[in-house]
Amino acid sequence: MESERINVNGYPCKNAVNVTEVDFFFGGLANSAVINNLVGSVITTANVEKILGLNTLGVSLARIDYQPDGLNPPHTHPRASEIIFVLDGELDVGFITTANKLISKSIKIGDIFVFPEGLVHYQKNNGVKPASVIAGFNSQFPGTQSIATTLFTSTPLVPDHVLTKGFQIGTKGVKKMRSKLAPKKNETIGLY
Amino acid sequence: MESERINVNGYPCKNAVNVTEVDFFFGGLANSAVINNLVGSVITTANVEKILGLNTLGVSLARIDYQPDGLNPPHTHPRASEIIFVLDGELDVGFITTANKLISKSIKIGDIFVFPEGLVHYQKNNGVKPASVIAGFNSQFPGTQSIATTLFTSTPLVPDHVLTKGFQIGTKGVKKMRSKLAPKKNETIGLY
Amino acid sequence: MESERINVNGYPCKNAVNVTEVDFFFGGLANSAVINNLVGSVITTANVEKILGLNTLGVSLARIDYQPDGLNPPHTHPRASEIIFVLDGELDVGFITTANKLISKSIKIGDIFVFPEGLVHYQKNNGVKPASVIAGFNSQFPGTQSIATTLFTSTPLVPDHVLTKGFQIGTKGVKKMRSKLAPKKNETIGLY
Amino acid sequence: MESERINVNGYPCKNAVNVTEVDFFFGGLANSAVINNLVGSVITTANVEKILGLNTLGVSLARIDYQPDGLNPPHTHPRASEIIFVLDGELDVGFITTANKLISKSIKIGDIFVFPEGLVHYQKNNGVKPASVIAGFNSQFPGTQSIATTLFTSTPLVPDHVLTKGFQIGTKGVKKMRSKLAPKKNETIGLY
Amino acid sequence: MESERINVNGYPCKNAVNVTEVDFFFGGLANSAVINNLVGSVITTANVEKILGLNTLGVSLARIDYQPDGLNPPHTHPRASEIIFVLDGELDVGFITTANKLISKSIKIGDIFVFPEGLVHYQKNNGVKPASVIAGFNSQFPGTQSIATTLFTSTPLVPDHVLTKGFQIGTKGVKKMRSKLAPKKNETIGLY
Amino acid sequence: MESERINVNGYPCKNAVNVTEVDFFFGGLANSAVINNLVGSVITTANVEKILGLNTLGVSLARIDYQPDGLNPPHTHPRASEIIFVLDGELDVGFITTANKLISKSIKIGDIFVFPEGLVHYQKNNGVKPASVIAGFNSQFPGTQSIATTLFTSTPLVPDHVLTKGFQIGTKGVKKMRSKLAPKKNETIGLY
Repeated sequence: MESERINVNGYPCKNAVNVTEVDFFFGGLANSAVINNLVGSVITTANVEKILGLNTLGVSLARIDYQPDGLNPPHTHPRASEIIFVLDGELDVGFITTANKLISKSIKIGDIFVFPEGLVHYQKNNGVKPASVIAGFNSQFPGTQSIATTLFTSTPLVPDHVLTKGFQIGTKGVKKMRSKLAPKKNETIGLY
Repeated sequence: MESERINVNGYPCKNAVNVTEVDFFFGGLANSAVINNLVGSVITTANVEKILGLNTLGVSLARIDYQPDGLNPPHTHPRASEIIFVLDGELDVGFITTANKLISKSIKIGDIFVFPEGLVHYQKNNGVKPASVIAGFNSQFPGTQSIATTLFTSTPLVPDHVLTKGFQIGTKGVKKMRSKLAPKKNETIGLY
Repeated sequence: MESERINVNGYPCKNAVNVTEVDFFFGGLANSAVINNLVGSVITTANVEKILGLNTLGVSLARIDYQPDGLNPPHTHPRASEIIFVLDGELDVGFITTANKLISKSIKIGDIFVFPEGLVHYQKNNGVKPASVIAGFNSQFPGTQSIATTLFTSTPLVPDHVLTKGFQIGTKGVKKMRSKLAPKKNETIGLY
Repeated sequence: MESERINVNGYPCKNAVNVTEVDFFFGGLANSAVINNLVGSVITTANVEKILGLNTLGVSLARIDYQPDGLNPPHTHPRASEIIFVLDGELDVGFITTANKLISKSIKIGDIFVFPEGLVHYQKNNGVKPASVIAGFNSQFPGTQSIATTLFTSTPLVPDHVLTKGFQIGTKGVKKMRSKLAPKKNETIGLY
Repeated sequence: MESERINVNGYPCKNAVNVTEVDFFFGGLANSAVINNLVGSVITTANVEKILGLNTLGVSLARIDYQPDGLNPPHTHPRASEIIFVLDGELDVGFITTANKLISKSIKIGDIFVFPEGLVHYQKNNGVKPASVIAGFNSQFPGTQSIATTLFTSTPLVPDHVLTKGFQIGTKGVKKMRSKLAPKKNETIGLY
Repeated sequence: MESERINVNGYPCKNAVNVTEVDFFFGGLANSAVINNLVGSVITTANVEKILGLNTLGVSLARIDYQPDGLNPPHTHPRASEIIFVLDGELDVGFITTANKLISKSIKIGDIFVFPEGLVHYQKNNGVKPASVIAGFNSQFPGTQSIATTLFTSTPLVPDHVLTKGFQIGTKGVKKMRSKLAPKKNETIGLY
């Protein structure tokens, strides 16, 4: 039961005698997520919170769905590298190196692309039909930080002066971006 | 150039200035592999040998294709845990714990199953149409040992007395299994 | 007390103030194990289950005893490399690489041999007197999977069709091997 | 000699016999950096590129200097956690968790604050005199990605449509931010 | 509450919802420690025992203060490499390699020096005024063993014959060293 | 060939095709070392310098021989935990924790004892006949620092004032200890 869980550098390990196939199975990535948000994409994770048997194993998956023109906006995974396989559709993908070089490519169904640990990256559906990918991570709990959401809609808010100086925009600009980026009522958000 | 590569605890890192999108891309898992072997399945890897940018990143993928009744026979990955996502079809999958308990399940398109690091596991297509999965690993070079092939067809051969005693079969039995398991001419083998 | 132990990614650490020399000591590898089984060998572990002070230290030992003609049958350690030192007798040892090459050698008292992480390996006493080794592992809990036992005697059983196809033998052959490999009454088994 | 260096998963280790105290010393953090840029802060690293003896040791330092009102704008370190000690002045610091919660605090000379691995964080000098910190990292080469610079001034540029959708701004807004954030002639940049 | 803490391979992680800035802050290195002991130096740690948010992050800091002629006597950190930054004063520092070579240097305010993992090292204030350093470690709990204190003042005592033979001194010499090294009443000790 | 070896964060990996059983074998621990030194013990290593196949495997062994009254004097292994198995004889063994508590025990043939990573420890033969142990390490190159030798006989020497203050002895005492601890002509030293 969730409320009994002790959170100790991960999760308690079940006694090996009580482990069953349920601890190693997840059916929640079978279908496209419903997409109903500004950016037009949703990430659904299959990490240790969903699959208890992943505890200590250092690996997990996620599914990302994109509507036409949908964007998985610039984000990072603080604890893992990522490698995606395109299930359907066509994507423009890219990451930026610490030398500030953009590494980008158009990829299509069946293609693979790699995003090194901790670097800012994005995927954009530039096709006319929905797209989806399966992503592999070398962490049972990689975490995700979506850059714009993190900086403009956190609780409490990042101070104005950090954003105006950091992005070289005015206070009005910050206000506008915060308002636009704020999660809408009934908006689909990622199933982290 | 391949012939210039120095193999040093992995691979030499390219100078960051010379890295391009090609180093992070692979198109070789887009299509089903041709299956023409005894067991009726083929594994195609997308590891650091195919994608140089995976070097030091600790993650990789593979694709496994199964014809109807095809089996990815009992095997281990010596350096990684594995998590599969079913692209197509239906599979019976299982692994055995170090307490000699079989953990198994029937899974279908869109399902996920986990095989903990180093444990013997298999997948069997019990459906009437082809099946395929994408597998994620927490290693850039997980390695694979197919149990029967490893024990009965290595070069040089594992001594008879190890196999007769280990499997409690006669010398004739060993000879027969070696003969049946030996790779056939024109046989499809895994693209490791 | 065993029943009070919480199994959390290993074991709870004692308060440093309560640690005593007992937590770092084990006397259970001093003598040869009694060998009374089909394969003629027994492994006795000295891991974190026996020595609580090994928790978080990432190292352990084991002792393996072999009667004349005894075999430590093909097996893997899913979480560790192994390095053995021959205490007594003569052994034929080997492991198979992921390139399906057998690396084998005859070794004798005082010799050392290495089995890389996760690879299938065996040791056979081909001398006329008992043999024994001490094995070092880079894990406090390396685990062991004996291949034939794992595949032919697990609970529940690995399905027939996985074994007939995987080993290219008939159902009768599977049945016979299961019957021969099943643990006998009073049989010595490893002290894992 | 720099030009002879082979870059192999880090750096080649010197023969232990040839190691001298120079390999473990660095004097380059002794003084405040000259600050002459938009954000009003400069980071100077003391990592394996400056101190060859750090190779394989997994630790490094950096110094950050801030003019009054200076900001170390929102950024991440893809391969390390960070812990800072305030050498001088007063700072408002913060990081955002993967649950989108801002953790922030005003700190002053002698105080310590922690930024967990890979999370977006910033430091702002809200005092009227210069400030500086020493930062410790658990990596010999932690890397830095300054969010705004990475997204708006990379080479080549991140496509407009990624930024307009990701930040919910117009193309004009993107253009303006790119122009303002572009490095100026004679601008001080970080000594990474 | 301290008394409720379960010590499990580190510390239990707080629920992310309950984390606050207090978990990532420490003010205890702001001032010089009071030095009132034989060696004339005091180390004050900022590790996971002081900053709970460091749990699982693998990094920490410490401050060392030295009176004129003060010595941080030969010691090791069993679980971390160390990199120091001189806050004030001048020091003679050194470590000895496993090839028994002393690597030493005089360093002054603003300089950096590295002590590789687990090696015996020391710092000596040879200036006429107090000195202090900030030390970074790649462990949240690096530990410290001061060699002379460890060997001559442990509880219970290291047997005489180990020390007489190990240091090639007489029993009287051992007795004398034990008496001189024993902590004095009111003596300042390190704030580990 | 030794002279061709490039020393890069360990050793270059042989091409898998060229690996042979020689790369995984070592015969050099078969016999007791000749002991002809002050302390009456010799350590002989079986690490990656002797067994090239250990590269990247993270494990190694050593043998220690003790004459009657022989001491393996207080020392540390900077990069590994250690677990010993007594091959012959009786030993008094101990280590000191970072809380300055001595954990010690008398052990005899067949017994096991653990020395946690990086902590000062010793073994003393208090029996009337030779003793020997096999030691397992979780590193392919654990390293050893013998405390007295390191501090009193390094090249160049540790400055007098560090030793007089650190050990609370006079300059004469330091001189005497240096002279006694200096390696003698024809002295057996450890085969590291």
